[in-house]
Amino acid sequence: MNRREFMLAGGALLAAGLSPTLFADTHVPLKVLALVFDDYETLDLHGPIEMLGHLPSVEITLIGPKTIVRSYQGPRVVADRLLDDVVECDLLLIPGGMGTRKLVDDTRLLTWLTRQVQVSKKVFSVCTGAALLAKADLLNGVSATTNKMAYAWVTGLNDKVIWQPSARWVDDGRFLTSSGVSAGTDAALFYIAQQFGEAQARKIEVLTEYQWNSDADKDPYAVIS
Amino acid sequence: MNRREFMLAGGALLAAGLSPTLFADTHVPLKVLALVFDDYETLDLHGPIEMLGHLPSVEITLIGPKTIVRSYQGPRVVADRLLDDVVECDLLLIPGGMGTRKLVDDTRLLTWLTRQVQVSKKVFSVCTGAALLAKADLLNGVSATTNKMAYAWVTGLNDKVIWQPSARWVDDGRFLTSSGVSAGTDAALFYIAQQFGEAQARKIEVLTEYQWNSDADKDPYAVIS
Repeated sequence: MNRREFMLAGGALLAAGLSPTLFADTHVPLKVLALVFDDYETLDLHGPIEMLGHLPSVEITLIGPKTIVRSYQGPRVVADRLLDDVVECDLLLIPGGMGTRKLVDDTRLLTWLTRQVQVSKKVFSVCTGAALLAKADLLNGVSATTNKMAYAWVTGLNDKVIWQPSARWVDDGRFLTSSGVSAGTDAALFYIAQQFGEAQARKIEVLTEYQWNSDADKDPYAVIS
Repeated sequence: MNRREFMLAGGALLAAGLSPTLFADTHVPLKVLALVFDDYETLDLHGPIEMLGHLPSVEITLIGPKTIVRSYQGPRVVADRLLDDVVECDLLLIPGGMGTRKLVDDTRLLTWLTRQVQVSKKVFSVCTGAALLAKADLLNGVSATTNKMAYAWVTGLNDKVIWQPSARWVDDGRFLTSSGVSAGTDAALFYIAQQFGEAQARKIEVLTEYQWNSDADKDPYAVIS
C-alpha cells in the first residue's frame, strides 16, 4: 500500500470510527516543512505546529526567503532553510496572511513552490496560503477552500480550482486546504487523525486543552452567495 | 479613573453586556511584552499574540534570556529585548511549557520577573507560566489557575495562591491566569473585551475564524478532586 492508498484507507477508517494505526508506533519522524515569509499570519503557522509538534516523533523545519522573518503581528521567527533548497518531506505547510498579497506575484517563490510540492507527500495550506498554490496552478482540478474573509480575492486568482465556499477544511488526496487562521489548527488535528489514528489526535487535543472542531462540514464562516 | 479602576469598571460593563470603549478609539498603542525561553509551548505564546496582534494599535515585543529561543515544538523565535531590561508595558504575557520546569529554579529569571511585574499594568500567564509567578511569590493571595495536565506540580509550588481547579481562566484584577495552552487564546480575547469592548473581541474572533470559548467558568479540563 503506497502513501496515497494509505491516506485514502485512513479516511475510510476514520469515517468508520476506527484508527489507522499502521504508522502510529514507528519511530521514523514525520518530516514537516513549513514556509515562512514576511507578514505571514501568526496562528496559520503556529496553530498547526502546536498540534503536529506533539506527535511522538516529528521534525519541524521552517523554510523562507531569508533567515529572519517577521509575522504580520510583529514577532520574528528564524528560518532553518532558505528557498534555494527543496526538501523531501511528509507534509508541506503553507500558511497565509497579508504577505501572500505580494507573494502571488513573486516568481522566485512560485517557482520554488512548484518544485517543492513535487517532493512533498502531502501539501497543507491554511487561510490564504491556498492563494500561492492556486496562482502557481498547483490546485487546478483540486477541490479546495481558503479564508472566508478573503474568499473573493483568492478564488479570483484561478477559476480552475474547485473552490468550496462552505468547509472548515477540504481534504482532496494530496492537498489539504483549510479555511482562515484558526481552521488550520482543526485541519492539523484532522491530518494527525488520518495519519496516526483518531486516538492520537484526541490525545493531543487533551494535552493542549483544545476544543477541536472536528467536523470539516461545519463552517461557521461559510460564504453564502 | 486610574487603570485598575478602569479595568474593574470594564469587568462590570462586560458582565452587563456593555462595552468599555473609553480606550477603544485612542491611537496610543497597547504595549505587550511577552517572555520567551527555550522549550516554551508554541500556542501559549502565539495564540494570544494572534488575537492581540489584530488590535488597531498594538506593539508586541518579545523578551528572553538570549536572542534566539527554541520552542518545545522546534521552531525558533527572535527576542527583541534581553532580560537585562525591564520594560514598562500594558500587558506582560508569560507563556508556559516544559521550559518552566527548569526556570522555577532560575534565580536570574525570577529576579527579573519580580522587577518586571512591578512595571506591568496587567500580568497574563498561560498554562504553566503561572508556575513562574507562583514560585516568585507574585501570586500570593491571588485567585489563579494553570494547566490542568500539570496542576499538581504547579499548585505544589506555592500554597499561598488561591488555586482554582475549574476555570478556563481567572481574572483577579492585575493578574489574569489561564488554563493550559489553548485557554490562553480564549483569555486573550477576554482581555481584549475587557479593555476595548466586547465588539472588538468579536471582530477579531470573526477575522481569525475562531470559535471563542468566552465563558471562563466552562472548563472541559477541570481538575476533579
